[in-house]
Amino acid sequence: MRVAYNEQMAELANLLGEMAGLAGSAMERATQSLLQADLALSEQVITEYDRISELSATAEERAFALLALQAPVATDLRSVVSGIQIVADIDRMGALALHVAKIARRRHPNHVLPEEVNGYFAEMGRIAVALGAAAQEVLVSRDPERAARLRDEDEAMDDLHRHLFSVLMDREWKHGVAAAVDITLLGRFYERFADHAVEVGRRVIFLVTGKLPSDSDDEYGIASAPR
Amino acid sequence: MRVAYNEQMAELANLLGEMAGLAGSAMERATQSLLQADLALSEQVITEYDRISELSATAEERAFALLALQAPVATDLRSVVSGIQIVADIDRMGALALHVAKIARRRHPNHVLPEEVNGYFAEMGRIAVALGAAAQEVLVSRDPERAARLRDEDEAMDDLHRHLFSVLMDREWKHGVAAAVDITLLGRFYERFADHAVEVGRRVIFLVTGKLPSDSDDEYGIASAPR
Repeated sequence: MRVAYNEQMAELANLLGEMAGLAGSAMERATQSLLQADLALSEQVITEYDRISELSATAEERAFALLALQAPVATDLRSVVSGIQIVADIDRMGALALHVAKIARRRHPNHVLPEEVNGYFAEMGRIAVALGAAAQEVLVSRDPERAARLRDEDEAMDDLHRHLFSVLMDREWKHGVAAAVDITLLGRFYERFADHAVEVGRRVIFLVTGKLPSDSDDEYGIASAPR
Repeated sequence: MRVAYNEQMAELANLLGEMAGLAGSAMERATQSLLQADLALSEQVITEYDRISELSATAEERAFALLALQAPVATDLRSVVSGIQIVADIDRMGALALHVAKIARRRHPNHVLPEEVNGYFAEMGRIAVALGAAAQEVLVSRDPERAARLRDEDEAMDDLHRHLFSVLMDREWKHGVAAAVDITLLGRFYERFADHAVEVGRRVIFLVTGKLPSDSDDEYGIASAPR
C-alpha cells in the first residue's frame, strides 16, 4: 500500500507541477500577445487552455482514486486533499491567462494598451510568470520556506496594481473610458493570477506543516485602489 | 461508524448552508450600502466577513477530521471532499461581497454609482442574493436538478454584465474614468459571486451523481464585453 501510495502521490505532484508550468507559460504568451497585439499568440493561449482543463480533470480524478483506493491517513491524507484544492487554484491561473489573451484578441489588430502603461503590464507579466514558476517549484520541492516567500513576491504585484490605478484615475488620462475598462480588468486578472500562486504556496505549507498560514485574499490590491 | 459519519456529515452540510446564507446576506447588505451610500451597512459587511472566514476554517477542519476519523469511501468520500471544495467557493462569495462594501466605503459620503446604472446594480444584487439562497438550498436538499438550474439563473447575470459594459463604453458616458473603473470592478465582483454559486451547484451535482457537469468558468461574461 505504502509503495503504491508514494508512487501515485508523486505522480499527482508531478501533474500539479506540470499544470503550474502550463499556466505560467500561458501567462507569458498572453502577456506577449497583449504587448505586441500578436493574434497568433492569443489564439495559442486560448487553444492551449483546454489542455490545462483536461489536466485539472485528470488530477482531480487521480486524487479521488488515491483517496478511495489507498485510504491515506494523517499527513498523506492532507497531501491528497490539499492537492485537490491546489488543482482549483492552478486551473484558475490558466483561466486568467486565457482572459488576458481574449482581451488581446478582441482588440486585434489594435493594441489594447496605450504605450504609457505597457511597462506596467510587462512587469506584471514578469512577476506573474515568476510566481507561476515558483508555485511549480514548491509543488515539487515542498519547501515551506520557499512557499512562504511567494507572498513577499506578490507584494510587488500589489504595488504595480496600485500604481496602475493611479495612472488610470489621473486627470491627465487621455485614452478614454474603453481603454480604462480593459486595463482595469487586465490589472485584476494579473493580480488574481498572483493571488492564486500565493494560495498554492499556502496549501503547500499546510500539507507539510499541518498549519494553514493566514489568508492570501486580494484585499490589499483592492483596498489600495485610489480614493 | 456509520451513525457518526452521518451525524458529522449533516453538521458539515449545515455549516456550508449557514456560510452560503451569510454570503448571501453580505451581498444583500453590500448592494444596499452601494445603492444608498450607507456607511454603517458597508462597515457591517466588512466586520461580518470575519465570521465567514472563521466558519470556512471550521468547516475545513471538520471535513479533514471526518476524513481522518471515519475514513469514508465511495459516495461518502465524494461528499466530504466536495464539501472542502465548496468551502473555498462560499468563502470567495463572502470576499466578493466584502469588496463591494469596501468600494462603497471608500467613496463615502459620495455615491459610487451614477444614477443611470443604479438599476443594473439593484438587479445584479437581486440575482446574486437569489443565487446565494439557491446555493444554500441545494447544499441542504442535495437536489441535482435544482442545482443545475443555478446555471440558467446565472445567465441573467451575464446579460446584465454585458449590458453594463455597453453603457460604460458608450460615447455618451459622461461620468469619467474613475467611475468607470469602479463600475468595471463592481460588475466583475457580482459576476464572479454568481459564478461561484453556480460552482457550488456543480459540486452538489458531482457529490450526488459522481459526474461533474462542464465548467462554469466566467468565459461568457468576459468574452461578451463589447468589441
